[in-house]
Amino acid sequence: MENEFEFIKNKLRPLTFSKKEARGLSDDCAFFEKIKDLVVSVDSSIEGVHVPEGTDIDIQARRAVLRSISDLATFGSTPICVFTAMSLPSTFKQQDFDQIAEGYRKALVEYDIFLAGGDITSHEGLPIFSVTAFGANANKELGRNKTKPGDLIVVSGSIGDSFLGLEILKNNLKVSSLEEENLIKKFLIPEPKIELGKDIKSFANSIIDISDGLLSELNHLCENSGVGSEVYIRDIPISSTAKNYIASNLYNYKDLLSGGDDYELLYTIDPKDKALIDDNSFIIGKINSDKKIILYSEEGKSIDIKNEIIGYKHF
Amino acid sequence: MENEFEFIKNKLRPLTFSKKEARGLSDDCAFFEKIKDLVVSVDSSIEGVHVPEGTDIDIQARRAVLRSISDLATFGSTPICVFTAMSLPSTFKQQDFDQIAEGYRKALVEYDIFLAGGDITSHEGLPIFSVTAFGANANKELGRNKTKPGDLIVVSGSIGDSFLGLEILKNNLKVSSLEEENLIKKFLIPEPKIELGKDIKSFANSIIDISDGLLSELNHLCENSGVGSEVYIRDIPISSTAKNYIASNLYNYKDLLSGGDDYELLYTIDPKDKALIDDNSFIIGKINSDKKIILYSEEGKSIDIKNEIIGYKHF
Repeated sequence: MENEFEFIKNKLRPLTFSKKEARGLSDDCAFFEKIKDLVVSVDSSIEGVHVPEGTDIDIQARRAVLRSISDLATFGSTPICVFTAMSLPSTFKQQDFDQIAEGYRKALVEYDIFLAGGDITSHEGLPIFSVTAFGANANKELGRNKTKPGDLIVVSGSIGDSFLGLEILKNNLKVSSLEEENLIKKFLIPEPKIELGKDIKSFANSIIDISDGLLSELNHLCENSGVGSEVYIRDIPISSTAKNYIASNLYNYKDLLSGGDDYELLYTIDPKDKALIDDNSFIIGKINSDKKIILYSEEGKSIDIKNEIIGYKHF
Repeated sequence: MENEFEFIKNKLRPLTFSKKEARGLSDDCAFFEKIKDLVVSVDSSIEGVHVPEGTDIDIQARRAVLRSISDLATFGSTPICVFTAMSLPSTFKQQDFDQIAEGYRKALVEYDIFLAGGDITSHEGLPIFSVTAFGANANKELGRNKTKPGDLIVVSGSIGDSFLGLEILKNNLKVSSLEEENLIKKFLIPEPKIELGKDIKSFANSIIDISDGLLSELNHLCENSGVGSEVYIRDIPISSTAKNYIASNLYNYKDLLSGGDDYELLYTIDPKDKALIDDNSFIIGKINSDKKIILYSEEGKSIDIKNEIIGYKHF
């Protein structure tokens, strides 16, 4: 079996795609002469926390990279590279390492980015991937604190599918249809909205990516901007598969809107820019000055969402 | 107790020292308009792997930051900021979080840098700190692959004290003197050689920091440059405390030279620049074209070091 030095040389060095900044992964640091308007994000993915125990290791590695570059979309930036710190079980075998490299490779190739550096250690717990992602040409006027009363709230795609995919995985439910396979895929292989981020960076006032649940992220956005909002369930895009789950009373709308892992963009725009949003984006509500979030049911009744807006708490 | 959002707001946000790049830790990303000649390094510190189980959590946090900025010294760069991804036991209490923030604060203040971002997750294992460190104004001609036959090998300070400190901690040995306390301190609170890195960046040909043991790092340097070297034990700076340990036959020179965690700089210079090295640095040998490392004992005999040059292997 390769030791970690050989693994770096044989399997990870090719993932630098010979970019000079990575210096062949042979130095202590990566080197960047200049990057204009650089954004940097750090995210950890832990087996048993972010993905169910037993998730294939190539998927864990790939998903860790995808999740971390999703943050870069919130500044409309172009992803450049990632650094990965891996803490892996000391029992890992050659095949596990090869699969990790393959998982990385898929994510890197898909988003035309390279591996710039990182760190490998063994530990007694489950696998942990901490990814630092770099994006360039970001718009610093974006972020979470620039929305204002009157802005429209927009979401870039269906909400809740990923949550349902995770439920299927966690509960070991039988997958009986292509639709259910797609829910699982939506959870395991997120699709960061990089191109959309670039398209909307000129007219969106605030952008956030939905990792912790739509209501939680909307709450962050409102708190940081010192505003409130009203949101209409009837306007939130929900897939037909997810609607079937709701119709069967297995889950309700609040579950979908607080479930998380959608990796869609939630953004706000001035009403005058309404015509600029793309065909997959939907206006789901409006920012006001009330400093609270009111969710309206399909029948137009306001729903108490105190607990749902908080999102996942680790402690 | 604070949840992680309150912890970030109350205890970590002050560690940004209001630097605009950190955006108050309230966005998904940090933002840098421009950084010239940026170097980036990622390092993980795991309780039970990099520090003994039971090490105070403030020390773990502080040491994780110090270790990661040591890499920045190898490019003669000026540290700017760090990002920290923490995976912490779900049983952690308010006091643990407060101590982590205090550990970070000490390291940040000492090196005049700020916290730019990061991530907090709970997991079932021991604490893990993954730190991404940024340095500016680096010299890209440096690194590990630029040394050449005829260069002198220089080390910036005593080797082996930190290894002995770790031995005392690991074996729960009784600490009976100030000297032994200093060995432990050298291990727990490394002193990255940032100023030295800046001083030597104009004349050093290659620089590496000694995290994995002098012989292992020298081997990396030689391998990457396609050269060999000869090193003289009599010229390697060893503290009087460490010499006492060797005199008592508890440890030998090979232990000290392969122990690691010194965080001194190992660098090579052209002989014509000999007069430029500082008073704490010592010439310990010479680069040659033999593609192997020969270590000479105090009596001038060559010592077999095949196993010692490899350093710590995680897998």
